[in-house]
Amino acid sequence: MSASQQTLERSNKRLLKVLEKSVVERPPIWLMRQAGRYLPEYREVRKGAGSFLELCYNPKLAAEVTLQPLRRFNLDAAILFADILLIPDALGQKVSFQEGEGPVLECISSEAELAALSLDNISGHLAPVFETLDRLKSELPDHVALIGFAGSPWTVATYMVGGRGSPDQRAARIWAARDPAGFQSLINLVVDATVIYLREQVDAGAEVLQLFDSWAANMPTAEFERWVIAPTKQIVAALGKSHPGVPIIGFPRGAGPAIPGYIQGTGVAAVGLDTGVPRDWAVEHVQPLCPVQGNLDPFALVAGGEALEREARAILESFKGGGHIFNLGHGIVPETPPEHVADLVDLVTSWQG
Amino acid sequence: MSASQQTLERSNKRLLKVLEKSVVERPPIWLMRQAGRYLPEYREVRKGAGSFLELCYNPKLAAEVTLQPLRRFNLDAAILFADILLIPDALGQKVSFQEGEGPVLECISSEAELAALSLDNISGHLAPVFETLDRLKSELPDHVALIGFAGSPWTVATYMVGGRGSPDQRAARIWAARDPAGFQSLINLVVDATVIYLREQVDAGAEVLQLFDSWAANMPTAEFERWVIAPTKQIVAALGKSHPGVPIIGFPRGAGPAIPGYIQGTGVAAVGLDTGVPRDWAVEHVQPLCPVQGNLDPFALVAGGEALEREARAILESFKGGGHIFNLGHGIVPETPPEHVADLVDLVTSWQG
Repeated sequence: MSASQQTLERSNKRLLKVLEKSVVERPPIWLMRQAGRYLPEYREVRKGAGSFLELCYNPKLAAEVTLQPLRRFNLDAAILFADILLIPDALGQKVSFQEGEGPVLECISSEAELAALSLDNISGHLAPVFETLDRLKSELPDHVALIGFAGSPWTVATYMVGGRGSPDQRAARIWAARDPAGFQSLINLVVDATVIYLREQVDAGAEVLQLFDSWAANMPTAEFERWVIAPTKQIVAALGKSHPGVPIIGFPRGAGPAIPGYIQGTGVAAVGLDTGVPRDWAVEHVQPLCPVQGNLDPFALVAGGEALEREARAILESFKGGGHIFNLGHGIVPETPPEHVADLVDLVTSWQG
Repeated sequence: MSASQQTLERSNKRLLKVLEKSVVERPPIWLMRQAGRYLPEYREVRKGAGSFLELCYNPKLAAEVTLQPLRRFNLDAAILFADILLIPDALGQKVSFQEGEGPVLECISSEAELAALSLDNISGHLAPVFETLDRLKSELPDHVALIGFAGSPWTVATYMVGGRGSPDQRAARIWAARDPAGFQSLINLVVDATVIYLREQVDAGAEVLQLFDSWAANMPTAEFERWVIAPTKQIVAALGKSHPGVPIIGFPRGAGPAIPGYIQGTGVAAVGLDTGVPRDWAVEHVQPLCPVQGNLDPFALVAGGEALEREARAILESFKGGGHIFNLGHGIVPETPPEHVADLVDLVTSWQG
């Protein structure tokens, strides 16, 4: 494909335009966890697919569930169906998903245990994910952007060390506090794995990348800089070198007043705002730095009706003066009626700012 | 006691001085969960005390564990040993604590189920708590302030509706989104119970009150105003009427950029800062509004040594220009060596700003 063709192609994709800081008449919309349990057709596929990991590693089915929300809703992007814990899995750490319990990993708790992990098979192990992207690339409508993703090293490490999600990420925080050099080795390993992973995602067709840092809250400034900002910056720089022009959206959930420093420190192209970020504050302190994405309360999407419409319009109005990608502040929850998602997408795509 | 005697007594208490906006030569220090599992003498009492709730309702033992950290460390305040879930328990909702699992409540999920709850026995049910305070009052050294507390209505409601802690408070958020009027009835009930509870705590000897809003993160502005700020304001106003001069410290954990609005909206006398609040931001946007408390990383206290000293000194330096109460950004974790707490208290109490 020639450069001019690529430019032409991009120009059809509203999400890419916003990330390139072009002006668009209405914000693009996609929704975190737009493929997922709230959709009956997802639950149907899930039932026959074996474990959650088996679904992630099945290119045909993973592509199918990625496409499901696109068939129902006029969304501007598809996001690869995968999980942030594929990285520990590819590094050789045993990961399993227990129904109703979420993921469980065999914990790593010292630098010595890192010896059991290896970068050697990242590409091989994750080949099915790249095949999923390859399939999607040819099946998406012209105006729909394809988003790849990974967890941020800090968040992935909290699972690798804690074995499962925890409200205070205690295990990782304690390791990092007691033995920062050892913990740094773990972070470095995850950074290296993530760079390999994301580069191959782009080679396979991803046009935008998102880094999910779900556990970026409650960290003191120095820890936030060392474990959140610095590794993210390394990934952004590495991808910028090998794949210039592929925008990376960072999502440091719960980082609050630390978000402006995160943008400046990492060089991300755009930033996700969780539901707790006050919009007037974000308009003043975040949006001048880069396009913002998110903020709609997933529970407003559960409620639907007037409450949803009011919130959605308030977000559209708040952010209309700068770069804005419409999204939720966190993933769609299973209790969400699909009709509410349809209502939201209709509202946003027909909005005339 | 005459008014002048009361003033005299208060003047010995560093914590009260800061809350009255007097200038002190070094900040008072107390630590969230200073009585708790990290202390062997606590674990000893706990072993023989039956269930966790039985310990809370045993004035002799609850007073004993409240005093334990005061015997080891030169702290400026004692905080009542109790739990934020005593309110649902006193309202008639069955609460149990399962070892290693935390609290479990029989969920309430509709306005109709509120009929089973009642304010009638709040005072009677919580009488042992007031007796604990009464015992403490006579046993504390002159310079030590006695802190009472309750959970904020929003956080208490998340447990009442969800049955247990959850990372996204889903059950309460969904009820509040689908049926705000019904959920308001629950919040009103908790506000009323909390006002009764805190008034009697003050009558029994509490000199300062803290409202813990552990789950104040991730809420959109309108929900934060309705479910966090408004109920807190009602409690602050009610106590201000019946017990003027008793300062209330609010702790909206994770509220980030919404903290200044919280202070102005609720009228709290001081505010707790969680670990994720950047200090330079807080110095600029929070401390001008009221004294600040907290922010030290509980995991720095686990690490100890130079890392702890560096963090503690940074906090002392950052906040020395205004009202400051030294504390953690969250409770002491069980992994904390008591010697590290001793080191910290020595550092703060000998600090010369």
